[in-house]
Amino acid sequence: MSDDKQIKIGAYLLERLVQLGTQSIQGVPGDFNMGFLDLIEDHSALTWVGNSNELNAAYAADGYARIKSTVAAVVTTFGVGELSALNGIAGSFSERLPVIHIVGVPSTAAQGAHSLLHHTLGDGRFGAFENMSKEISADSAVLKAKEGAGEAIDRILRTAMKSARPVYLALPTDLVHATIPSAPLNTPLNYDADENDPDAEQYVLNVARQHIADAKSAVILVDACAARHGCIAETNELITKSGLPVFATPMGKAIVDEDHPQYGGIYVGNLTSDPVKKIVEGADVLITIGSLKSDFNSGNFSYRTPKASTIELHSDYTTIGYSHYPGIGMKRLLPKLSALLEPEGQRRLEETKKIVPKFENVLPQDDSSVITQEWLWPRMGQFFETQDQVIVETGTSSFGMLEAKLPAETRWVSQVLWGSIGWSVGATLGVALAAREEKLGRTHLFVGDGSLQLTVQEIGTMIKHGLCPYLFVLNNDGYEIERQIHGPQRSYNDIPPYDHRLLLDFFGKRDFRSDAPSHAKDRPPSRKQYCKAWTKEQLDRLLNDEHFKKPDMIRVIEIVMQRGDAPKALKRQAEATGQANKYD
Amino acid sequence: MSDDKQIKIGAYLLERLVQLGTQSIQGVPGDFNMGFLDLIEDHSALTWVGNSNELNAAYAADGYARIKSTVAAVVTTFGVGELSALNGIAGSFSERLPVIHIVGVPSTAAQGAHSLLHHTLGDGRFGAFENMSKEISADSAVLKAKEGAGEAIDRILRTAMKSARPVYLALPTDLVHATIPSAPLNTPLNYDADENDPDAEQYVLNVARQHIADAKSAVILVDACAARHGCIAETNELITKSGLPVFATPMGKAIVDEDHPQYGGIYVGNLTSDPVKKIVEGADVLITIGSLKSDFNSGNFSYRTPKASTIELHSDYTTIGYSHYPGIGMKRLLPKLSALLEPEGQRRLEETKKIVPKFENVLPQDDSSVITQEWLWPRMGQFFETQDQVIVETGTSSFGMLEAKLPAETRWVSQVLWGSIGWSVGATLGVALAAREEKLGRTHLFVGDGSLQLTVQEIGTMIKHGLCPYLFVLNNDGYEIERQIHGPQRSYNDIPPYDHRLLLDFFGKRDFRSDAPSHAKDRPPSRKQYCKAWTKEQLDRLLNDEHFKKPDMIRVIEIVMQRGDAPKALKRQAEATGQANKYD
Repeated sequence: MSDDKQIKIGAYLLERLVQLGTQSIQGVPGDFNMGFLDLIEDHSALTWVGNSNELNAAYAADGYARIKSTVAAVVTTFGVGELSALNGIAGSFSERLPVIHIVGVPSTAAQGAHSLLHHTLGDGRFGAFENMSKEISADSAVLKAKEGAGEAIDRILRTAMKSARPVYLALPTDLVHATIPSAPLNTPLNYDADENDPDAEQYVLNVARQHIADAKSAVILVDACAARHGCIAETNELITKSGLPVFATPMGKAIVDEDHPQYGGIYVGNLTSDPVKKIVEGADVLITIGSLKSDFNSGNFSYRTPKASTIELHSDYTTIGYSHYPGIGMKRLLPKLSALLEPEGQRRLEETKKIVPKFENVLPQDDSSVITQEWLWPRMGQFFETQDQVIVETGTSSFGMLEAKLPAETRWVSQVLWGSIGWSVGATLGVALAAREEKLGRTHLFVGDGSLQLTVQEIGTMIKHGLCPYLFVLNNDGYEIERQIHGPQRSYNDIPPYDHRLLLDFFGKRDFRSDAPSHAKDRPPSRKQYCKAWTKEQLDRLLNDEHFKKPDMIRVIEIVMQRGDAPKALKRQAEATGQANKYD
Repeated sequence: MSDDKQIKIGAYLLERLVQLGTQSIQGVPGDFNMGFLDLIEDHSALTWVGNSNELNAAYAADGYARIKSTVAAVVTTFGVGELSALNGIAGSFSERLPVIHIVGVPSTAAQGAHSLLHHTLGDGRFGAFENMSKEISADSAVLKAKEGAGEAIDRILRTAMKSARPVYLALPTDLVHATIPSAPLNTPLNYDADENDPDAEQYVLNVARQHIADAKSAVILVDACAARHGCIAETNELITKSGLPVFATPMGKAIVDEDHPQYGGIYVGNLTSDPVKKIVEGADVLITIGSLKSDFNSGNFSYRTPKASTIELHSDYTTIGYSHYPGIGMKRLLPKLSALLEPEGQRRLEETKKIVPKFENVLPQDDSSVITQEWLWPRMGQFFETQDQVIVETGTSSFGMLEAKLPAETRWVSQVLWGSIGWSVGATLGVALAAREEKLGRTHLFVGDGSLQLTVQEIGTMIKHGLCPYLFVLNNDGYEIERQIHGPQRSYNDIPPYDHRLLLDFFGKRDFRSDAPSHAKDRPPSRKQYCKAWTKEQLDRLLNDEHFKKPDMIRVIEIVMQRGDAPKALKRQAEATGQANKYD
């Protein structure tokens, strides 16, 4: 583009998103955003997803951001649309995913006049919704004029990438098609991690070296923020070069390949298996990468790893023992730490191989045909293939799947910190779209019959886009995770029974209107299959079926499970949570 | 109750709600609210609804508050649950409905420690969610100790009733079962409207008398807030005693019986029919009751009624011409104004009868069998019976149904100001529950196939509770109201086609689990019927069927309509809205 060219503000924003790698945009049309949707629909490199509602759209953006390193986008309309999305956006804030929430808002003139428009609170407070979003955003911009619009867009996108958090953009109807210079687009956004102060960094490395040199044993614990802040390669380099044993937290699962020879499984405080607990808690030094010690990610804060012997690497600070080093970020520090540890790596590797337990999918041996939690997860672990996506709903699935060993390069998608039920269904849409764009493997969702109900209609959007995820529905007759925590016999943990046989055909009717104009659609809707397994044998047969393994249709697999059955880790966590929430 | 008795804080709140008239409580279980749900489930006078998600729950509370004069209640859990409800609560704020949003939050100890709990933003900001809710609440209380808890509950409930707005209550797990004195419960909450200052009120009456005495003609225009602030009886008294012609705005429809001899139809600025327009805009004095001049409620601000000749009665102020009288509320003023106008009432009534057009359901005569907007609404008007509830989704339905004459005592339920698509489905649950409790007539929903998709699962909750609404689904193949405003051929206004035949059976499977414990349920789930009408004749036959008229099952009636067909009023409104949102 030549330097005097102009571009519409809406188009400028889209070009930036495309540069970052975004190809699908989530959202719902509304009368204050349709001029922007025109630009999306007309853009050759972008697909408008068109979700069933705004919360699902935000969940889908969250899922999309978990697979692709870009800013995922969700478009809503002023007031009614944007507020419906807030829980999803807050989840991305809590769990650290870069998402831009683009809200089509009334014209600057109508806002200035405080007009009593539909979609307002009726009292002229046009700033109320931005105030609400600010609580769950790393930055926000409400465009007021075309001057500075491009700079504001660049600023919040850069913030989203660097902080791995959502940002908020209000786009008034009269500015979407207003033009600004396009020249800045010639320079891609720079969102590289900041350099660490060299003297401070060297000091930290010296302290770390001393710590490790003094130690008889050290282990690495990988957590969520290693992935969120783009340090997967650096983390794996540290593991390989150091030769140290490595474990993962629930939120850090599968960041390191689970068949890596140094990998020993999940560490989650008190809920950890004995052999892993012994190694992690017995180590003289614990190196954590991207640690996020939330209750469910830490066995309810039950780490038995002394602070004095822990080196914590974070996106923008480091701690060693009780010393805090602000501004020393792991993206830059990790390679130097790897270099530091490399000389002794081979020796440590030999040691590591002797002590790290092999993490495997072991099926329990019993004669019952009932599908139990204990059996299901290792069995599913055997079904997955390299580069598959595994999405687990907050509930029995997110606890149970921790026990499954996943193949190399599996993407593990869970929401352990925010834990919003229903999230996984929307997220699956975003994950499946991202996986198709990135030419990854299959997408698998594990969701209970209770959580499914909150967001079930998003399956219609999957069918519309011709996506072919495996939707495993664990039917245990209600909110089992809630029952584990409180009120196992209470009727408030019951749900209305859905007939899952009809699910795909209800949400995916072929268009029956001969008079409907035909739209240029890239893909036909998904073919569909419903299966049900009451017994281990039935599920086994299905999972072994060669045809079933091919992701050529969208599948609902209803798995009948027992009320009261829950993964061991959940049972223990639920007990702790129930204790913390004591009512008497 | 004796004066030294103690009661749990949660139970205190429930007693207050029961005293106000609440019998059903909406919401979704979560681990921070289940101790409170125990109290609800164990309360003999209360039903726990158990919605499919929190947004739907908030919509249902909104609908419930529109039928009953009480504070409707919705219970969610900290963070994840409460944020999902915000759009629904904001709608109740905008449209003025008293709703209490009760949020189960972590224990005061966990909050004080800023623990990194699940359902938090991960940064220790436990106040963020209350900040968000404050923007859309008339008052809020976050309980911190049992001292003062009863007073705080009383204060916010009184505010909800007096302001007709939502309030927010955060209930920590450790306080729900903590006890406080029960004695205050012996005195019911007083939420009567404040008395007006007698001198100021007399002055206002004198000015009003002069205005009306000088006028050759006067008309009354009834608007939403007449109902929201409990002035329906006072409004009808004014009409009868004054003998003046009366009209309604879209939001004020059916507050006055539409077969009242003084009633002439809807006034909505430029979109008004010529005969009504002439009378209203030609009057020397216009008396508005509870006016709420939003864009869609005023023909996009196109009243041609001079301010100088308008008397506006509001809940907490009055204006006459350009004079503003703060603190003079209509609840107290209306009876005095009625008395003032009574002496000339009979004379005016004779005049009124001569000029007010008869408002009737007139079917257009044409030979086509296609179900048109022009035909549908008056035809539906003929179907309704006294004390029926009519809920119209924001879209073609809310505009179209304005043209139908409704029987006496019909409850008209629409969301003209907030206008959140999908609202009506959740609201229908609340309306149907309230109508059953109040022993009113049938409940009818009119919703487009597009809006239905956002909240469709709430139909499962209706079936679970054995409710029998009529769900008229206008299938016109997408978001028609959006197409009228912008992008009639754009694919972003398309939706995935659902197979509506399967809807009730999908969401309402009979419980198939022989091993599921049986819960004491008051009612069996609804019986179900699906019908479809492609032609006028088919719909006519159905509406005339005696069996169909009996609300003894839940019904989905799919009405096939044409893309591009819209009520006249919507076409004109859409043009104005499109103009205000110009993109170039």
